[in-house]
Amino acid sequence: MTNAIDRLVEQFSKLPGVGKKSASRMAYHILDGPSGRARALADALASLHDLIRRCGICGGFTESDPCPVCADPGRDRALVCVVERAQDIRIIEETREYNGVFHALGGLIAPLEGVGPGDLSIDRLVSRLRSGAREVIIALNPTLEGDTTALYLQKILKDLPVEVSRLASGMPVGGDLEYTDRLTLSRSLRGRIRM
Amino acid sequence: MTNAIDRLVEQFSKLPGVGKKSASRMAYHILDGPSGRARALADALASLHDLIRRCGICGGFTESDPCPVCADPGRDRALVCVVERAQDIRIIEETREYNGVFHALGGLIAPLEGVGPGDLSIDRLVSRLRSGAREVIIALNPTLEGDTTALYLQKILKDLPVEVSRLASGMPVGGDLEYTDRLTLSRSLRGRIRM
Repeated sequence: MTNAIDRLVEQFSKLPGVGKKSASRMAYHILDGPSGRARALADALASLHDLIRRCGICGGFTESDPCPVCADPGRDRALVCVVERAQDIRIIEETREYNGVFHALGGLIAPLEGVGPGDLSIDRLVSRLRSGAREVIIALNPTLEGDTTALYLQKILKDLPVEVSRLASGMPVGGDLEYTDRLTLSRSLRGRIRM
Repeated sequence: MTNAIDRLVEQFSKLPGVGKKSASRMAYHILDGPSGRARALADALASLHDLIRRCGICGGFTESDPCPVCADPGRDRALVCVVERAQDIRIIEETREYNGVFHALGGLIAPLEGVGPGDLSIDRLVSRLRSGAREVIIALNPTLEGDTTALYLQKILKDLPVEVSRLASGMPVGGDLEYTDRLTLSRSLRGRIRM
């Protein structure tokens, strides 16, 4: 009915997981609220790309280069966690279980989508590892593309003096045998842990 | 980890129905995309409050005053649909079933939240109706507050020469008796329609 609202609804509905209805609720929520709140979100959006760059070492999102993780002398640089996307770094960081550094591949091998090993930051990973690493943890999703990429990395890295491991895959904590799919269950079995 | 992302995540998570995880997905989606897309959303947000005002007649959101509906000579001005919030007007408009005009109350009577009839635009509704109306359709939600407000309006309007009706309440299209709550079912029964 009104252009400025429609425009905002359209922009909101381009966000992941936001349908037309949610976008509309968001727009009217903003409209009902003080204009200062709209401006705060607008400013955060407008400045995002100016402030955030990629870390020259790990490829993570950062305001300073190298990023705080790569620059931290307390981190174990001989332990490298390989993730698909830069945003996965935050997820691992939030476990507070990890004290190594990261390497963002920038994607997964997906022949059907035309993504080959050359499109990922694999060469840089290898040269990073060559300059002194003890262990690589492959933290890619347990999906077809994640598995393919993990196998490829395993092959590429087998001549380097590094130990290669991968995140355990199995039943989620609090899960139920009855509701676990067969593939996950067979992985849980194969990856069973001695008690 | 990085301030500019955190700030955007925080702003996104203030939107209705957006939790921390969705807000984070949205922020990284924006970050992964071109900066032009972030700027388009920023602009739509920043200009919203400058462009949108309330219609002086119906209280709806509009870029021009009076709004396109109130200004449309093809609309039946003797038929007034009363809604709770300005954004409800769009929902009724989208049915393409309605050719009258609107009146946004600006809320519902809710004594527990300290909202009384004086806080709503009821006086203006009455004066609008006095200047020549045939029918009022009360399109308030079938909730406790909606029912209270509808009853109050019915009482206030009973001396005016207007017919007062209310949206039918009952089972949704495609609904199932088995999954319909008792209150909705009794309304469906009371409001049953002769075939």
